[in-house]
Amino acid sequence: MKTLIKNGYLITMEEESVQKDGYVIIEDETILATGSGVPPADEYDKVIDADEAIILPGFINTHTHVGMGLFRGYADDLPLMEWLETKIFPMEDQLNDEYLYHGAMLDILEMIQSGTTCFLSMYMFNNGAAKAILESGIRAVLGRGTSGIGPDEKHRQVFDEIRDLYRRCHGADNDRLRIWIGPHACYVCPPDYLKKVAALAEELHTGVTIHIAETQSEVDGCLKNYGLRPLPYIEQSGIFDHPTVAAHCVWMNEEELAILKKYQVGVAYNPESNMKLGSGVAPIGKMLQMGIHVGLGTDGSSSNNDLNMIGEMRSAAFLQKVANLDPLALSAWDVLRMATVEGAKILHWEDAIGQLKPGYQADLILIRTKCPHMRPLHDVVSNLVYSADKSDVETVMVKGRILMENRRMTGLHETEIIAQAERTFREMYKKLQQSQKKEDEKVDI
Amino acid sequence: MKTLIKNGYLITMEEESVQKDGYVIIEDETILATGSGVPPADEYDKVIDADEAIILPGFINTHTHVGMGLFRGYADDLPLMEWLETKIFPMEDQLNDEYLYHGAMLDILEMIQSGTTCFLSMYMFNNGAAKAILESGIRAVLGRGTSGIGPDEKHRQVFDEIRDLYRRCHGADNDRLRIWIGPHACYVCPPDYLKKVAALAEELHTGVTIHIAETQSEVDGCLKNYGLRPLPYIEQSGIFDHPTVAAHCVWMNEEELAILKKYQVGVAYNPESNMKLGSGVAPIGKMLQMGIHVGLGTDGSSSNNDLNMIGEMRSAAFLQKVANLDPLALSAWDVLRMATVEGAKILHWEDAIGQLKPGYQADLILIRTKCPHMRPLHDVVSNLVYSADKSDVETVMVKGRILMENRRMTGLHETEIIAQAERTFREMYKKLQQSQKKEDEKVDI
Repeated sequence: MKTLIKNGYLITMEEESVQKDGYVIIEDETILATGSGVPPADEYDKVIDADEAIILPGFINTHTHVGMGLFRGYADDLPLMEWLETKIFPMEDQLNDEYLYHGAMLDILEMIQSGTTCFLSMYMFNNGAAKAILESGIRAVLGRGTSGIGPDEKHRQVFDEIRDLYRRCHGADNDRLRIWIGPHACYVCPPDYLKKVAALAEELHTGVTIHIAETQSEVDGCLKNYGLRPLPYIEQSGIFDHPTVAAHCVWMNEEELAILKKYQVGVAYNPESNMKLGSGVAPIGKMLQMGIHVGLGTDGSSSNNDLNMIGEMRSAAFLQKVANLDPLALSAWDVLRMATVEGAKILHWEDAIGQLKPGYQADLILIRTKCPHMRPLHDVVSNLVYSADKSDVETVMVKGRILMENRRMTGLHETEIIAQAERTFREMYKKLQQSQKKEDEKVDI
Repeated sequence: MKTLIKNGYLITMEEESVQKDGYVIIEDETILATGSGVPPADEYDKVIDADEAIILPGFINTHTHVGMGLFRGYADDLPLMEWLETKIFPMEDQLNDEYLYHGAMLDILEMIQSGTTCFLSMYMFNNGAAKAILESGIRAVLGRGTSGIGPDEKHRQVFDEIRDLYRRCHGADNDRLRIWIGPHACYVCPPDYLKKVAALAEELHTGVTIHIAETQSEVDGCLKNYGLRPLPYIEQSGIFDHPTVAAHCVWMNEEELAILKKYQVGVAYNPESNMKLGSGVAPIGKMLQMGIHVGLGTDGSSSNNDLNMIGEMRSAAFLQKVANLDPLALSAWDVLRMATVEGAKILHWEDAIGQLKPGYQADLILIRTKCPHMRPLHDVVSNLVYSADKSDVETVMVKGRILMENRRMTGLHETEIIAQAERTFREMYKKLQQSQKKEDEKVDI
């Protein structure tokens, strides 16, 4: 199967340039050639006229919690701990693989519709998530969320579950899904537990994703409990000897930035979540100056409240500019790199995705420019980052397979997925109420 | 002509509540009734099934520069003064009423498509802008941009032009267009000039819009030149005795907030422009606590870079939350008020727009909820502010006239408007190059 996409503004991310009359030739799962001008004459099975759309690598969302779409807007404008403890945790207790599958399908549908072709997720019930990923056609790294609270026996079970998931799913569908480990954060992971996580990463030769220094209170708690700030605390465990994506990294001093650099820990910058939850502003400018690799993430859709990487790029740049009172902080190119090629780097997948070049996986998107908010088109990258809307994503391809074409989903049934997700939440909520009623009855006795 | 819109989530903004199965009945230009449940039986000329869309007052954009869409992305990621002096000012010198008309049509098209039904603009060539407003069907206040730099004769001409514009256009089309005065900012308006502006506002019984305290350097300059910060400096002119919308108000101390309150000066909060240009964060929380009226604005699309009020609401809340490290700062309801009823208040138009209630102008919009990023719909207002996309705006009505229905423009020709705007920029750019060439030749001689 050979496909030609032509007549677009091509941004390969191999070079930082925009090629007019750009084209991409795809054979089966991979990119055969890119260029500009008249495409080579050949017998193509399919020809897509981009009609001046931007052709670029699909977005890589380096931090989310796939399935949390079920809880979108369930409890906003609440203090973080009240939100978690009275609203989210009780609902999460009702989750199972089937429910998670329906939540993941909702999230994946939204991600594809907004141009994301790969994501790194940290959450529970990964059998459900893996099923949704494999069915939908999107690419992902699943970091099984874990906590070091509770008895050792529980941790052993979770580790066995990760081993099993890894054995069954790591590298599935010709390397479209990878399995990592996702210890939640220092505040639920004692030192010994983190060492066990590092040992499991060693055993499976895989990566780790963890929240680090999201809030000031996380830093205060870590200092109080362990006499160390979160980053040096986690450094001691040996986790950083393995591929690591650290989400947030908001409260970082110079010494900690040096640790990130030393171990080549990748950072997932989550501007909208950090804004909405009032967490703070990560020192992204310093990180880039030091050569630390930074990807972009939306976080879960219950703390954002969407999974839109185009909006996230815009917020990523805007937040740095205002926080530094500097309109030059973080350019449009800087954030476009984060959302594509740098995202691939921090996932240690830069040999196959994040750029459009021969031999790479055909993970790409088309973004229309023929709409009032994208014209005039003085600067394609500026309009892409500062003016484009997620609904401008027209066509999405992962591994050479078209998942959306001219905004029509080719495989997923939008109405059905939405209905299933809503039914799922209602069921979970009913179960929660029943279990709370039982608790109340116990108290009455 | 009697229209029924039914089966929506109705938010009237008269009350802060969401009515399921909401309906609105419109007769000609005005709202006849609103309610929920089964709508009254009647002979309607048109029935719109909202299909669970949100029905709410159209957005009121209280600060923009209509026509600047021509310069969208023309020169981003530059320092403010370099951007203005080497890029924007030379291009603005090429503007005329015809060019401005095409730029305004582009901006108005984008505004309608993202749910804005009324805007306050400060810019030049208002004959062109007025023509675009009256043709397109949108509602607006045009604050003719002025500067106190240059000879008195020029100012007299501009004032005469404003009188003429006021006489011809103020209240046009049964009060769909109003004419205000728009002195740019303290740094181009000496004391005597501002007094003349106040006298003109008195003469015409009209309002004034002006940039105030957008950047720290504006404050520094005002202190240096006049020994006063911008707000007390402008207070002396008497302008605040007239309806005034002050754009930005980023760098405000307690004393200045008290002045805003004393004169009931309306504030146009422009979060995305303040972020993109690295200007700072306005003390919105304090303003609301003090009972100062705050509307929302996008600023011009060359410093934003779009005119999307849904995105602006989201940024408005997010920026306050992160700047105050407080997830409770500025709720979804707070910013929805700013974008509707409070916007009407600061434009002194609260007796006719900004709410859906009997006798009010039928300026309203429908926002779909049947899409993955809007479901589940646990909290309609939370999803509207934190998750909705501008492309979710389905239908837009101004003065009872449908300007967009199911995302199809009823009157404006999108392709033609875009083509005209692009042609306009090319012509202006060519003229600029020719004039620069002439300048160079002069230097050579």
